[in-house]
Amino acid sequence: MRVKYRKGAPEYLKANTHLVVENPAEYKGRWSERFGNDHPIHIEVGCGKGAFIVGMAAKHPEINYIAIDLQLSVLSYALDRAIEAELPNVQMILVNGAQLSEFFEDGECDRVYLNFSDPWPKTRHEKRRLTYQTFLATDEKILKSEGEIHFKTDNRGLFEYSLVSMTNYGMKLKQVWLDLHADEAFAKENVMTEYEEKFSKKGQVIYRLEAQFVKK
Amino acid sequence: MRVKYRKGAPEYLKANTHLVVENPAEYKGRWSERFGNDHPIHIEVGCGKGAFIVGMAAKHPEINYIAIDLQLSVLSYALDRAIEAELPNVQMILVNGAQLSEFFEDGECDRVYLNFSDPWPKTRHEKRRLTYQTFLATDEKILKSEGEIHFKTDNRGLFEYSLVSMTNYGMKLKQVWLDLHADEAFAKENVMTEYEEKFSKKGQVIYRLEAQFVKK
Repeated sequence: MRVKYRKGAPEYLKANTHLVVENPAEYKGRWSERFGNDHPIHIEVGCGKGAFIVGMAAKHPEINYIAIDLQLSVLSYALDRAIEAELPNVQMILVNGAQLSEFFEDGECDRVYLNFSDPWPKTRHEKRRLTYQTFLATDEKILKSEGEIHFKTDNRGLFEYSLVSMTNYGMKLKQVWLDLHADEAFAKENVMTEYEEKFSKKGQVIYRLEAQFVKK
Repeated sequence: MRVKYRKGAPEYLKANTHLVVENPAEYKGRWSERFGNDHPIHIEVGCGKGAFIVGMAAKHPEINYIAIDLQLSVLSYALDRAIEAELPNVQMILVNGAQLSEFFEDGECDRVYLNFSDPWPKTRHEKRRLTYQTFLATDEKILKSEGEIHFKTDNRGLFEYSLVSMTNYGMKLKQVWLDLHADEAFAKENVMTEYEEKFSKKGQVIYRLEAQFVKK
């Protein structure tokens, strides 16, 4: 997600270090301490404006959520929502998804969410896609054994690529939706992102999958 | 595919045993002898009226094709096309896809095609779907190591199911198309089935995948 630079965003983040973790590497292996409980940890890589992760946190108080984005202005909008929601189970970190293992111990997380990730459609940018094998390897490392990635997108090319990339990495598909909003049963538990709300209203198909790493 | 009973179909098949193999079990392990060469063998399970397999055979003289259907009247229409095409590399057998290992030796085939297979949408009919694990096990047995299944359908539910079933069986996806007819490069090599021609004209999305068994 690209947004214009938001004036005062750096100061705003610094004024809210109870939500935006200043030195996330300090919590590596100790996120449970930060949350004050040992609930499962679900992270969203590329949280955008935070509608998804804050919505999920409100719905699932039994899960701890960590929102990750590498863009300061983007994270500042997610912070708006987190402040408004006043939830004890959301934390945010301003880091690059490629460096997750600097901030999480092996097996510390339970699930990774990827929502409407940048498709990087050009072949020469394949390595930047969040479902490229190096990202999958990092996710596998920080996830518990048989951990899961839940991914949704409106981008057909990225979804096709991800099905191939994930299964060639050795992951299994637990469930796949090729028109998420046609599934009325799932609609009840689906928390929409800003993108999703906008694009599904236009009649755009939303794809979703739940993929699982295989025990080694 | 369901068709009305075609009058005279049994006699018609019997009159063309150079194309419709009368006792296919006799050729188990000896299909190369029947074709008179050792070209790779590709089979289509559920060949319908034969547009796909006869079209493929015309396009790929270096491959031997075997069309399989369990319905006599259906196969009789495929026979019309095979007779008209006069190709040395198509043979047809009237058998059930569940019994393939009675007609093919382990590792005798190179590829299985599934086109617009019956979706059997009810959960209690899951075991009848041609991508259910028992069918995959039979396909794996008769295919060479790392053999492939190429599957296309317009049925979203069956395609979603097949992605899950195949990857849980341990197969990898080599390539996936979520809107086959949007791929102009592939259109050149795509041979359409009767169904596909009809439904894609109506603007229906066609799904396709190439999945590969993993070396054990």
